[in-house]
Amino acid sequence: MNQDYIQSNPWSIIEEGFDKERVKSSESLFSIGNGAMGQRANFEESYSGPTFQGSYIAGVYYPDKTRVGWWKNGYPEYFAKVLNAPNWIGIDVSINGEPLDLATCTNIKNFKRELNMKEGWYRRNFIATTPNNIEIEVVATRFLNLSHDEVGAIHYQVTPLNADAEILFKPYIDAGITNEDSNWDDKFWNTTNIKSDKNRAFIESHTMKTNFNVCTFMQAHLVYGDTIKDTPHSLNQEELSIGFEFSQKVKKGEKVSLVKYGGYTVDRNHKADKLTEAAHTALDQVSSLGFDGLLEEQKKAWARIWEMSDIAIQGDVKAQQGIRFNIFQLNQTYLGTDSRLNIGPKGFTGEKYGGSTYWDTEAYCLPFYMATKNQEVARKLLKYRYNHLEKAIENAEKLGFTNGAALYPMVTMNGEECHNEWEITFEEIHRNGAIAYAIFNYSRYTQDYSYVPEMGLEVLIGIARFWQQRVNWSAHRNRYVMLGVTGPNEYENNVNNNWYTNYLAKWCLEYTLEQLEYVQQEHPNDYKRILDKTQLGNDETGLWKKVATHMYFPYSEEHGVYLQQDGFLDKDLIRVADLDKKERPINQHWSWDRILRSPYIKQADTLQGFYFFEDHFTNKELEKHFDFYESFTVHESSLSPCVHAIQAAKLGRMEQAYTFYLRTSRLDLDDYNKEVEEGLHITSMAGTWMSIVEGFGGMRVKDGKLCFTPQIPEQWDMYSFKLNFRNRVLKVTVTQEGAEFKIDEGEALEIVVDDKPITLSA
Amino acid sequence: MNQDYIQSNPWSIIEEGFDKERVKSSESLFSIGNGAMGQRANFEESYSGPTFQGSYIAGVYYPDKTRVGWWKNGYPEYFAKVLNAPNWIGIDVSINGEPLDLATCTNIKNFKRELNMKEGWYRRNFIATTPNNIEIEVVATRFLNLSHDEVGAIHYQVTPLNADAEILFKPYIDAGITNEDSNWDDKFWNTTNIKSDKNRAFIESHTMKTNFNVCTFMQAHLVYGDTIKDTPHSLNQEELSIGFEFSQKVKKGEKVSLVKYGGYTVDRNHKADKLTEAAHTALDQVSSLGFDGLLEEQKKAWARIWEMSDIAIQGDVKAQQGIRFNIFQLNQTYLGTDSRLNIGPKGFTGEKYGGSTYWDTEAYCLPFYMATKNQEVARKLLKYRYNHLEKAIENAEKLGFTNGAALYPMVTMNGEECHNEWEITFEEIHRNGAIAYAIFNYSRYTQDYSYVPEMGLEVLIGIARFWQQRVNWSAHRNRYVMLGVTGPNEYENNVNNNWYTNYLAKWCLEYTLEQLEYVQQEHPNDYKRILDKTQLGNDETGLWKKVATHMYFPYSEEHGVYLQQDGFLDKDLIRVADLDKKERPINQHWSWDRILRSPYIKQADTLQGFYFFEDHFTNKELEKHFDFYESFTVHESSLSPCVHAIQAAKLGRMEQAYTFYLRTSRLDLDDYNKEVEEGLHITSMAGTWMSIVEGFGGMRVKDGKLCFTPQIPEQWDMYSFKLNFRNRVLKVTVTQEGAEFKIDEGEALEIVVDDKPITLSA
Repeated sequence: MNQDYIQSNPWSIIEEGFDKERVKSSESLFSIGNGAMGQRANFEESYSGPTFQGSYIAGVYYPDKTRVGWWKNGYPEYFAKVLNAPNWIGIDVSINGEPLDLATCTNIKNFKRELNMKEGWYRRNFIATTPNNIEIEVVATRFLNLSHDEVGAIHYQVTPLNADAEILFKPYIDAGITNEDSNWDDKFWNTTNIKSDKNRAFIESHTMKTNFNVCTFMQAHLVYGDTIKDTPHSLNQEELSIGFEFSQKVKKGEKVSLVKYGGYTVDRNHKADKLTEAAHTALDQVSSLGFDGLLEEQKKAWARIWEMSDIAIQGDVKAQQGIRFNIFQLNQTYLGTDSRLNIGPKGFTGEKYGGSTYWDTEAYCLPFYMATKNQEVARKLLKYRYNHLEKAIENAEKLGFTNGAALYPMVTMNGEECHNEWEITFEEIHRNGAIAYAIFNYSRYTQDYSYVPEMGLEVLIGIARFWQQRVNWSAHRNRYVMLGVTGPNEYENNVNNNWYTNYLAKWCLEYTLEQLEYVQQEHPNDYKRILDKTQLGNDETGLWKKVATHMYFPYSEEHGVYLQQDGFLDKDLIRVADLDKKERPINQHWSWDRILRSPYIKQADTLQGFYFFEDHFTNKELEKHFDFYESFTVHESSLSPCVHAIQAAKLGRMEQAYTFYLRTSRLDLDDYNKEVEEGLHITSMAGTWMSIVEGFGGMRVKDGKLCFTPQIPEQWDMYSFKLNFRNRVLKVTVTQEGAEFKIDEGEALEIVVDDKPITLSA
Repeated sequence: MNQDYIQSNPWSIIEEGFDKERVKSSESLFSIGNGAMGQRANFEESYSGPTFQGSYIAGVYYPDKTRVGWWKNGYPEYFAKVLNAPNWIGIDVSINGEPLDLATCTNIKNFKRELNMKEGWYRRNFIATTPNNIEIEVVATRFLNLSHDEVGAIHYQVTPLNADAEILFKPYIDAGITNEDSNWDDKFWNTTNIKSDKNRAFIESHTMKTNFNVCTFMQAHLVYGDTIKDTPHSLNQEELSIGFEFSQKVKKGEKVSLVKYGGYTVDRNHKADKLTEAAHTALDQVSSLGFDGLLEEQKKAWARIWEMSDIAIQGDVKAQQGIRFNIFQLNQTYLGTDSRLNIGPKGFTGEKYGGSTYWDTEAYCLPFYMATKNQEVARKLLKYRYNHLEKAIENAEKLGFTNGAALYPMVTMNGEECHNEWEITFEEIHRNGAIAYAIFNYSRYTQDYSYVPEMGLEVLIGIARFWQQRVNWSAHRNRYVMLGVTGPNEYENNVNNNWYTNYLAKWCLEYTLEQLEYVQQEHPNDYKRILDKTQLGNDETGLWKKVATHMYFPYSEEHGVYLQQDGFLDKDLIRVADLDKKERPINQHWSWDRILRSPYIKQADTLQGFYFFEDHFTNKELEKHFDFYESFTVHESSLSPCVHAIQAAKLGRMEQAYTFYLRTSRLDLDDYNKEVEEGLHITSMAGTWMSIVEGFGGMRVKDGKLCFTPQIPEQWDMYSFKLNFRNRVLKVTVTQEGAEFKIDEGEALEIVVDDKPITLSA
């Protein structure tokens, strides 16, 4: 844990007291989003202290020309940068002509931020004395509408406390923004039109190269007692920004508020030449509801989300806050309403990593969305990859693969690869397996087998072809081997026979063969169509069988474990527990070659395989592997502790599972990795959800049935969660006394608890 | 072979006919240099066609901020860029007011370039018709003085052939130059002063960051019959350049010439504020000699070089031209007069690779300089690394090594590492071994054992410490292993137990222990001094012994060969001969991951070890290894064919050796690697010399004696070379009939020919 300033609270994230050193961290932690857009918790008024400004629009990116030291054949031309979008939240404030800036105020008191996760709003209040000695109180409330997802609302209230004062509000929108993360300082945005209409203003811009058209807009009015001013006193238009001025003489102790609506209309949803019109329509809708009406809507919309996805924990506020923060952020990032979007690793909270889609989506996020939303949402995530199949085939062709072999990109926005480290881009190919696994996982959980004949089988064939071409026969071992890969543990590069990748490849080949047989029997028309389209022949499937049967897996007789890769035992096997604490995190203390030579594991690798394919192994085997690999794992990836939490729970090691749970659920709140300023770890948050549901709850799907082995950490009195499972909503409640299972409606459901079948009725 | 336009000639490189497509290649091939500076064969007059402009000053570089896609801990801050220096060769020419530009002339006839290697000059002549229909003949001769190495001379002669004409010469110097290779488009040079004095002009500049001060200067005069004009008609001074105008009405058929001297004075040799003064002095000296006098000096200086270093071949002009081109370029690049300088991989012919010093110097260049120059030159190369020892220790510390362990940089200008690919910078550590080997090689050849106690032992201790810390004990193998390295074959990255590196490390440890003992016995005072300085203890040397004794070497019982690295036999072992020719060179056709997975070897790796330590292995062993590895070697490094040539000759496979010899000696002339435009492969040229002396001549030093097993390719009638060996000059002549050995003077010398001892007297 590297920080502990966040107040414990079951439903809110709360910071008290103003500290300039925490501003950037809090800008990340208090971020808000609604799936279509999002923003860091930047101040509305000017702030001259250190800050990281960020507003983001889903799906809008810039293909920043690749920057490398030394070019390698096969590198992609660009890296998709997450774009800082024009700012619509800005409200400059002056008190008797003195600009309000927290960095120059004195006597800052009662500073508080609250992110109310239950209701979906963010509020900041403080009392401060301006350089001209006016003490004021500010209460600024902001939210991004879930129901009108192009618009956000701000209620910015000022009270002069020690004198009457002239309060001037200057709400503005500003396209003069830059990215912190930029390869060549390219200009990312081009602004083509700035205009106003009464108390509304509009900036039309488009991104360079990708040409996404965006209209950034706002509307503002002032409220003082019964007075509502919706005509600005003046208009300031500059080259890249536009703003209004509203001023008001305010009596000591009285409140004046500026209400502002703003946001973006984008050409993903509207015609490019109708964006301003669409903005007008959106503003008409929200202003007819008013700030309070909108906030009511927002509370209801979040209540609907929580109704299904909340996990309640009693007896441990920090644990409760952690899981809700994770669920809240996942829902702020992706709501499953648009199959063109996906779940970026930093969501709408920062620029780092770029792109929007990693294997995180399939390996970590899918189970969360599958169980807490309508299953259509999970299907959309699968379809996203089907839509990119052609580009995955092109990507594989660039690397020399042929005949429809598909390699999905490591990082992408539109299906094209945009990462450029050879050891990752070309070698961290296990991502392909996670995409196949997600198809299996979806079918297993939902029993919706229609995705495979409609779309999934083509994806599986492309992936199977890739694996078959990616291995080679080793005459020496009399087995197929896979050389030059990087497993999930990125602290190893370019290794041979990474067990996880080999195992996943073998499984993909077998699963594809199974699904081919299934589609042939059950959907002969689809089968014919797909065979025609892919030109798949018996010689190929014969080869797949052969590769699957003769795949090589490194194994240590001495330790009784599969080896993470060839040569793992040559390492200097000092356990993490015996490392000097000063050396950690090793990624901040050691040179890259030293990390690579060491046995230390960044995130679950062999154990990731044991997680995916748990039922292929005995508990004894799991235990051996867990004991061996956990002792070398440093968990310097956000995606690591959740898998270990699930497995520790499975092995009945609840204290250890609880420690992993806290680490994953409060990773950002407590800033374990010393980097929360850069944004939140959104995708790993789904792993936190899994830690409870699959870890403590022991939820699995076996033989088509939902099974549980419920446990509870000794620190907790109770926890409960719901699962959307094949048209029923199952509620699971676990206390120290035992577990309770309920369904609300629908057909009876047979589940298995601690290996005993139980039938539930509504 | 990818081009064949260079005319065969024993002493000259000749191009005939003008072809715009060849300009950049010829600019490389006809480059001239004198160890202190050098330049590509750019035209003196303006040329609007494609060209790659380059003038370089030895030791003057710019630390260009590192550019990477993804930063890795340990990367250096900068990459040392070879700098394009201010241009001093420019002479713009106008004919009746029409600028001369070969790209706009018609009827270009008799175009010829000649690089006369025997005498050290470059000439270009042509007849062309200008757009205003004047047919002119141009003969431009240029050379960089060996004896006055700050100055070059140009004699530029124009003859109007079809009419009288007004010829205007505008000699200039120009600091408004840029680099082709630049990470961030930084400004590399800052110009502080431009001035003229009669027919002399000076530009004072310094490099940014490194602050190398340089005065670029020129002097010019016109010669028409008996008329000499040394007062310019006018002066053009601009922000970054300065030039004169000399004009002359010339009668049809008469010659007019512009004679220009120019070059650089640098603060490595003069006080920074006396550079213009030094330039005046240099110009005084050369102008007193005159162009013809200087050229005479140049011929004599080159004759002295050739006297010792020439290899004569009879019966095969291409082979003869190839070896002389190689020897000529090596001498143009480095003459051994300054221990602060070294041998850049492109010499003065291009910018690629940056830096100046690679392991090429020790592994390839040292033997050439040792045998063809005074042995002080080789000693200077060793001393260069001694001077960098402290920085090599700092470099190792950055990567986590301690206690004086030294890692010499992969690429350097001043001892600091400046390369930034993790797989090279951190892992291609065998370079350390080559530096130790060079000390051994020098002592063995010269019997000068004084370098070790004076300087070498400290270097060896630093290197031994590095190896001992870089290995780790593998409990599994009961041996020391070395993980995460890149061998000389850069088509493998981050491998374990690269045989060459392990072997070299073991040898370094043993050699250091031997030398410690030798210094202890023979130079007790030095021993004490060094032990005090390095704080070396018995526990350390004990550990070195243990590591050397228990080093692991991967070996295949099946093939009877040491394996290039762990897992080599897992590869798909298709021989190069069975590869589709269209796929080659693989580095231009395959993605990086495919290259890495393949068995193909860029340059001698295991065989490099057999080259260094030939006497550790039997001929039978060499043959097995050669047959195994040669079949997978693609020789896509310039440093590869020479080692294979030597070993093929050793195995009596003369036809194969001859093929390798041609490939190495004519690599650039015939542009085997399709990249000669970027500059020449200077360091590999020393390998060509070794191919003849050590390959065909079979020269070795064994038991302190020079040994030969002379052979001759059937294509040749004769070849001969000289060796400077312990104060004698030995001349070796080999014909189809036999070999002849002579010494010119000095004590009698016992050599061994075909295992038979022979005593030579002067």
